[in-house]
Amino acid sequence: MTQTDSKSQLDATKDAVTKQGEVVKKLKLEKASKEQIQPEVDKLVALKEQLKQLSLKEDGADKFDRATLESVLLKRFFYAPSFEIYGGIAGLYDYGPPGCALQNNILTLWRQHFVLEEDMLEVECTNLTPEAVLKTSGHVERFADYMVKDVKSGDIFRADHLVKQVLSSRLEYDTKLAAGTAPKLAKGQAKVEPLSADVRKDYEMVLETLDNYVGDELTKLIRRLDIRAPTTGNEVTDPVMFNLMFETQIGPTGQFKGYLRPETAQGHFLNFKRLYEFNTGQVPFASASVGKSFRNEISPRQGLLRVREFTMAEIEHYVDPTNKKHARFGEVKDLVVPLYSATAQEAAAGPTKMTIGEAVESGVINNQTLGYFVARIYLFLTRIGIDPERLRMRQHMSNEMAHYACDCWDAEIKSSYGWIECVGCADRSAYDLTAHTNKTGEKLVVRETLPEPIIEDKVVLEVNKKNFGPAFKKDAKAVQGYLDSLKTGDSWNEAELLKLKSEIDANGKVSVTGTDGKQYELTGSLVTIEKKTIKSHIREYIPSVIEPSFGIGRILYQLLEHAYYRRESDDEARHVLRFPAAVAPIKALVLPISHSDEFTPYIKEIVTSLRRCNIANKVDDSASSIGKRYSRNDELGTPFAVTVDFQTVQDQTVTLRERDSMLQIRGKIADIVDIVKNLVEEKTTWAEVQASNPAFSEQAL
Amino acid sequence: MTQTDSKSQLDATKDAVTKQGEVVKKLKLEKASKEQIQPEVDKLVALKEQLKQLSLKEDGADKFDRATLESVLLKRFFYAPSFEIYGGIAGLYDYGPPGCALQNNILTLWRQHFVLEEDMLEVECTNLTPEAVLKTSGHVERFADYMVKDVKSGDIFRADHLVKQVLSSRLEYDTKLAAGTAPKLAKGQAKVEPLSADVRKDYEMVLETLDNYVGDELTKLIRRLDIRAPTTGNEVTDPVMFNLMFETQIGPTGQFKGYLRPETAQGHFLNFKRLYEFNTGQVPFASASVGKSFRNEISPRQGLLRVREFTMAEIEHYVDPTNKKHARFGEVKDLVVPLYSATAQEAAAGPTKMTIGEAVESGVINNQTLGYFVARIYLFLTRIGIDPERLRMRQHMSNEMAHYACDCWDAEIKSSYGWIECVGCADRSAYDLTAHTNKTGEKLVVRETLPEPIIEDKVVLEVNKKNFGPAFKKDAKAVQGYLDSLKTGDSWNEAELLKLKSEIDANGKVSVTGTDGKQYELTGSLVTIEKKTIKSHIREYIPSVIEPSFGIGRILYQLLEHAYYRRESDDEARHVLRFPAAVAPIKALVLPISHSDEFTPYIKEIVTSLRRCNIANKVDDSASSIGKRYSRNDELGTPFAVTVDFQTVQDQTVTLRERDSMLQIRGKIADIVDIVKNLVEEKTTWAEVQASNPAFSEQAL
Repeated sequence: MTQTDSKSQLDATKDAVTKQGEVVKKLKLEKASKEQIQPEVDKLVALKEQLKQLSLKEDGADKFDRATLESVLLKRFFYAPSFEIYGGIAGLYDYGPPGCALQNNILTLWRQHFVLEEDMLEVECTNLTPEAVLKTSGHVERFADYMVKDVKSGDIFRADHLVKQVLSSRLEYDTKLAAGTAPKLAKGQAKVEPLSADVRKDYEMVLETLDNYVGDELTKLIRRLDIRAPTTGNEVTDPVMFNLMFETQIGPTGQFKGYLRPETAQGHFLNFKRLYEFNTGQVPFASASVGKSFRNEISPRQGLLRVREFTMAEIEHYVDPTNKKHARFGEVKDLVVPLYSATAQEAAAGPTKMTIGEAVESGVINNQTLGYFVARIYLFLTRIGIDPERLRMRQHMSNEMAHYACDCWDAEIKSSYGWIECVGCADRSAYDLTAHTNKTGEKLVVRETLPEPIIEDKVVLEVNKKNFGPAFKKDAKAVQGYLDSLKTGDSWNEAELLKLKSEIDANGKVSVTGTDGKQYELTGSLVTIEKKTIKSHIREYIPSVIEPSFGIGRILYQLLEHAYYRRESDDEARHVLRFPAAVAPIKALVLPISHSDEFTPYIKEIVTSLRRCNIANKVDDSASSIGKRYSRNDELGTPFAVTVDFQTVQDQTVTLRERDSMLQIRGKIADIVDIVKNLVEEKTTWAEVQASNPAFSEQAL
Repeated sequence: MTQTDSKSQLDATKDAVTKQGEVVKKLKLEKASKEQIQPEVDKLVALKEQLKQLSLKEDGADKFDRATLESVLLKRFFYAPSFEIYGGIAGLYDYGPPGCALQNNILTLWRQHFVLEEDMLEVECTNLTPEAVLKTSGHVERFADYMVKDVKSGDIFRADHLVKQVLSSRLEYDTKLAAGTAPKLAKGQAKVEPLSADVRKDYEMVLETLDNYVGDELTKLIRRLDIRAPTTGNEVTDPVMFNLMFETQIGPTGQFKGYLRPETAQGHFLNFKRLYEFNTGQVPFASASVGKSFRNEISPRQGLLRVREFTMAEIEHYVDPTNKKHARFGEVKDLVVPLYSATAQEAAAGPTKMTIGEAVESGVINNQTLGYFVARIYLFLTRIGIDPERLRMRQHMSNEMAHYACDCWDAEIKSSYGWIECVGCADRSAYDLTAHTNKTGEKLVVRETLPEPIIEDKVVLEVNKKNFGPAFKKDAKAVQGYLDSLKTGDSWNEAELLKLKSEIDANGKVSVTGTDGKQYELTGSLVTIEKKTIKSHIREYIPSVIEPSFGIGRILYQLLEHAYYRRESDDEARHVLRFPAAVAPIKALVLPISHSDEFTPYIKEIVTSLRRCNIANKVDDSASSIGKRYSRNDELGTPFAVTVDFQTVQDQTVTLRERDSMLQIRGKIADIVDIVKNLVEEKTTWAEVQASNPAFSEQAL
């Protein structure tokens, strides 16, 4: 089968899946009986499996040569395993000079694109975080994965990864068995029987809904499907929760249990009040932060994609929950973005390209602010060199949303590892600010002066201070704490108050639990509960938070795959990284055509001029041929090369070579430096430069 | 006494100390008897005490108003205690928007000044570090302070800080007692007797040599001087070592004990081989890194100066130990720098201003490379706005050098906390690279092709592979490990080899300890030890490392003190931070003279133009008076303000105000934006701008 045949078959199957998905959806909407729906669901599952097999085949056809890219990256020291000479530690990587420069350039553009452009308030908060903060945020309890151990070898697996790996490989083997392409059994290996259609369907269903198995359900699943450690064939233990945060002690006596932060977000929230004041009380506004986060992954893998320490760039945009319009929405509303909505995923359809304006208007994206950031994220990623054809914005399904999120879109980038989440854009609602307000009593709120006062009838509670203090003495704080828990911001929980009031009215008293856990009695002489007409000049509310959160290491790796290509030349394959000039680690290579002292002053002059413009450059005056030296710098993704040759000594002109076209122009040193500057600052393009300068080709590459 | 009197007395005393120091030094050089030397030493100690008292007095005279500065910094959210709403944790601070921008700008200039200027190889290594690495570097064993506990309250103190605090306050009280200025005793407080001259001298000697007291000596000192917890008066426990590294577990089973790095340096060293290859084998070269380090201080204090988590910028410059010349030394040799040598400190003299060239030539600074970096550090600090009059380079005394250093100069910056070490510039020699080479067997060496081969007679050991493997089998590695330990690089320890040989010659065998701790026997059939004529074409050596290491938080705080001044105005004192434009958090304030919609398009135009030039700017269109708005931004250190007024609507001109002179010019928007750009990029100065533009003063401030 040719590649084209395979592609058209793939497209036909995609269409069939979409149509069948719509059939199922329609039946569900019509509330058809289970007997009616089930056969159509079976058909859908079968079609999806077919689609998967075809996709795998297609992926194989133009399989990305990851091993070669990785060897280039290691050779040029983009990154390398940390502590390599000590045997390394999984999930920890160091960045070498080009990796570092690439990351710095991505972050510089990020700051320009987001922080500077939108007057965001940048903060830098500590990595060390006391336990109390992460208890409130829910991380101490919930930031965990299930792990299992090989009962004999003690090898450790992340439970969901293990189930996925075992079932996927059973299905794959079964497919090969049916096609007669299964590998021969090794001596002593037990024969594997073909799977029944029911079993295949069962596995596929489990794989689709793996996120739903937690606690006992997960244990039962592992036993029912006899999931074992792959290499040893041993049974595994029952899954246990493993918290992914690194724990440590702060201070000399272990007086503070602490963790390394798993995200930078909490630091923004804790500083909300200062940020809000810094912004002179105006909302919406955003805070931004670039820093490390730490996750003690059970089994790190996939290179830079799942690591234990990584750079994040996070934005927290604070907005009125009743008005999520964005002032600059108009600037992005016509941008066309591939959106993969939850509905489309349920129907097993693909992403749809539409304008952000349409998406928000039709409710695909919940609100303008979320839509605005989805667009800005898309623009940022394509600006730094991510291939738009391998980029999509995918909405979270309701069962995969983080505990705090009320809607979430991921920027997913495709590489040889498949579609990988690289940016999350979540509407965290008021979850975190509310939790910290309730825990600390520090109001993390917006106070808005109303143009006209609002007059409302409200049930309120008033403490009769004269009696309250003497009645409770040192316990007054605990009782007051209980009363505060009946409030959100300035608003009382009216239902609770009315319950208290009716008990007091009936029995003269009511028993309540103070924040110290003890019981106290409230009477009518201690508190007054009544309906009052309240005139408010101030509206107090906890803002919603829209959070674009960037995994910089992941973006960087995907960019490396997108930038990489091979150039077949006369002698050997050459590797090239096609970075946009703005993100390239080194902008200009400076080299003499051959080794001769007479070139030295010109090299110096060029380097000094480039430095004066803060253009990262590198001299290569090694003995290698000029072709080898160009090629070495193609591997670093250096977009431009300035070469000094014998003509330079005559007329002070040098050549400028561009990496991808390999074409050259010639000009005076000062002019060439100017051109490089304008190219790097994206004030001109290579095509424009070529148009206004004759090509130069006398000198052999 | 007037301030001038006090100053001249101070100078006279300084002279006396210097002269007396020379007397003592001369006697020591002449190897005079103890009886001859002691009285002169006593005189010197007395003079030094007198000098100290006078200095204290002078410091008091122009006492810096730290409380006011700190309140401004907190109000404008330069930084604030982390987790404040949870009660905070000592030694952890968050940076708000201006603090963040200030730090980013300092780091950008640092990268330009060092990394870009010298083609340094930047690396980014992980914070998490496995124990093995930090054992080799010596940190597990030695990176510790002594701590003591109040036996009753359990309060914890760093032992040396406590001794210093107690003795200093006893001396201070005694001085006041003598002068009749001691505060009255509180009721029930025991009367304090005056100290005898001997006791005073004892205390002073202890304070001068506190670093020398370790282990039992420190315990004895605490008991002898009856050092107690200051607030409770309770005894303290014996001092115990407390390691300052934060410990954690890497991986789900605690299989790897790890620490948060206490410095970034080790990451550079572990990557030496890749860096050396990246630099195509050329030496000298340098690596550079910016990142966090962590130290679990026993009692953090002094704001940003002693914290538990901080940003460091470190350079490791690798150089041939036999040739520490620097190619660019000529560019700095005429720079005059205040150098405070170890000799000057011993003689209790002050720093001397001299050129770096003289300093290296006369041996004050050990070598050109160290001298080059001392100069570059000085230039960097003054460039970002550190006052040269409050900056000195101080050489470490031999007893305060870190365990790895063979010479070290600190850049010390003076603030209200005194002279504070902000940059260290150490010659770490080959300590770390040697230690990691020996531990891992991975050679972290330079291999230099010699112009002519060197022919030498050397004692060498050769393993007779035919017999060695079969004789030791699985233990062969442990025995080989022992043999490797007799080598440094390619050179055998000849004395050790000859010892082995003589035993084998005498007894036919020799017993040695393998790296597994077991005993093994070597015989003449297993190893051959003999003198050989070796012809080397390659010189292999472990390079020396010169390490400039910057504490960014400390520099930032000292800069804040140097930048701060009060401007007395008609109504109230105004606070100003006089940052150079290049480091100022916000470069330009943009504001309408009053609230009116007709100004909005001009504000937008200015902001867009500034953004296009990547100039950080801020609009202040709040209702406050223009004076208040200028003043608010003086507190942020914003150097320029562009104001839109009624004339703008007529002729599209705006005013440009400079922060320190408070003078203004007027021009077209595009011209003013250009001027701001040139000012920020330091291509012109305000004086030059004023010279070519008439002052504008029609509009009231």
